Amino acid sequence: MKEVEKLMNYRSDVRVIDATLRDGGLVNDFFFSDEFVKALYLTNIRAGVDYMEFGYKASRELFDETKYGKWKFCRDEDIRKIVGENPTDLKIAVMADVGRCDYKKDILPKQESPIDLIRVATYINTIPTAVQMIEDAAAKGYETTCNIMALSNSQEADVKAALEILAQTPVNCLYIVDSYGALYPEQIARVADMFCSVAEKYNKKVGIHAHNNQQLAFANTIEAVGDGVDWLDATYANMGRGAGNCAMELLLGFLRNPKYNIYPAVQFIESYMNPLKEQGITWGYDAQYLITGILNQHPRTAIAFTKEKRTDYAEFYKELVVHDD
Amino acid sequence: MKEVEKLMNYRSDVRVIDATLRDGGLVNDFFFSDEFVKALYLTNIRAGVDYMEFGYKASRELFDETKYGKWKFCRDEDIRKIVGENPTDLKIAVMADVGRCDYKKDILPKQESPIDLIRVATYINTIPTAVQMIEDAAAKGYETTCNIMALSNSQEADVKAALEILAQTPVNCLYIVDSYGALYPEQIARVADMFCSVAEKYNKKVGIHAHNNQQLAFANTIEAVGDGVDWLDATYANMGRGAGNCAMELLLGFLRNPKYNIYPAVQFIESYMNPLKEQGITWGYDAQYLITGILNQHPRTAIAFTKEKRTDYAEFYKELVVHDD
Repeated sequence: MKEVEKLMNYRSDVRVIDATLRDGGLVNDFFFSDEFVKALYLTNIRAGVDYMEFGYKASRELFDETKYGKWKFCRDEDIRKIVGENPTDLKIAVMADVGRCDYKKDILPKQESPIDLIRVATYINTIPTAVQMIEDAAAKGYETTCNIMALSNSQEADVKAALEILAQTPVNCLYIVDSYGALYPEQIARVADMFCSVAEKYNKKVGIHAHNNQQLAFANTIEAVGDGVDWLDATYANMGRGAGNCAMELLLGFLRNPKYNIYPAVQFIESYMNPLKEQGITWGYDAQYLITGILNQHPRTAIAFTKEKRTDYAEFYKELVVHDD
Repeated sequence: MKEVEKLMNYRSDVRVIDATLRDGGLVNDFFFSDEFVKALYLTNIRAGVDYMEFGYKASRELFDETKYGKWKFCRDEDIRKIVGENPTDLKIAVMADVGRCDYKKDILPKQESPIDLIRVATYINTIPTAVQMIEDAAAKGYETTCNIMALSNSQEADVKAALEILAQTPVNCLYIVDSYGALYPEQIARVADMFCSVAEKYNKKVGIHAHNNQQLAFANTIEAVGDGVDWLDATYANMGRGAGNCAMELLLGFLRNPKYNIYPAVQFIESYMNPLKEQGITWGYDAQYLITGILNQHPRTAIAFTKEKRTDYAEFYKELVVHDD
């Protein structure tokens, strides 16, 4: 049981990362208006958020630039149009996916860039490339994190081995990523324990990125922070792929650190997030995501179900469960 | 940290209580069609649910019968129209509120009634009346629970005293009720510990009824079951007052007891709960409920905000926070 004193106080090492543009961009193909992005930037500053993730540094050779908004690619000049020289305490992050990022070319030296943090996202089977990308970004002067995706589908021994390898790079923070929204808080406690014990040995931080398939993204995030996880991802109004992420407004309401403020978050939801929903952009908990979450599967089938505006949940359940294997 | 072995297995003492008609009735003034109620009854049987709460035994002197559907009053003959002699393993429950129930007159002897369980709901300041109601129901032959509402606003010493008094009655189960959706899982762990230690002494069970103001109803319920709480309230599609309750489909997906099945729940959501939403019946998590939850207040202001179809969340926040006291 967690101590009352700990809950009442706060850990100054906690960092809040706004992933609205990046994970939310997966919902609307990154077509956010500049006005939206600027308002989000100002909101994050007022709310005391520590990092704002602008999107992906996706390969322009692999992805067709006409089919996505600019935050799929996060050119430095596009970020600069929003933040100028970013004379604030809010740091700028972008995500670089293993195998989908021309990082040598597209990630410039830090002194030429408004970006502070490169978040390297990898599956468990591409750790060596992730290591190269981390080393490249660190050598260029960036802070780095490594986000190990689809953790709930990985063998514990493999995860441990990956953590040992990654912890010996210059990476600042190792991320627990529950891509499928499959984990329960008790499981998060065990995973956090595994991550934190390696991280402590190498003086690294641990982070968490949760999904809301079982209405547990916030619960899993606060479970993790109680277990010693410091870097916490959240998005306004839970916006994110499929069932979405941990809601920023819930997290800011929970954290006791005096620097965080919930009121700007409430204003932003009213003025920007709810209008997005009214325009027909769809995300958030629904039974199809619960089903893929429980089955520990990638939500792509549930996302397709949503896009097709299907409502036959029972048939969907059968499609995933009833087969001959 | 909870043990892996415990999570993988199940406790045969766990009971699932469907509160859809009762707490959901607070959303639509109990105007459920007989077809809906019959389908819910059959769903609960197929899903392996242990108890189905039909509604309130509300005083017909205090409440105008023309303004509510019949499940506000739960006449025995109305229940019988749905369940006949109820030749099933599913038990029938109703709620009796302290001060709003003519229990001496309206609760008949068990042998004349299809009802199995009387759930007495009380605030901390009306425990003696709750005791009388429990003794009355038990003497008539019913199982009983006592639901202590608004727990998050009560002094711990008062709660302990109340539990000691209640545990000496014939009550079968003492309920943790987070009426305001204000509690975090770590707090639930401590409250569960307090309830369980009294309950153990007197050979009683402990239950939980959670609200979803902070997207924690399910998380708090599974936290509680991990702490030794056996009776678990849930509603289909989270339906319930304000932000709603713990979702039945999430709970059935979590519990490992082989008697529980999620598929009938998915079917019921598709055929009955989603159509209810499409008819314009509104419940579930939204920022106004988050705000009252964080502030540990009754959600009545947030419910009014919802009813008036207001969308000025920031102004609502200020109404609750900015004043001279």
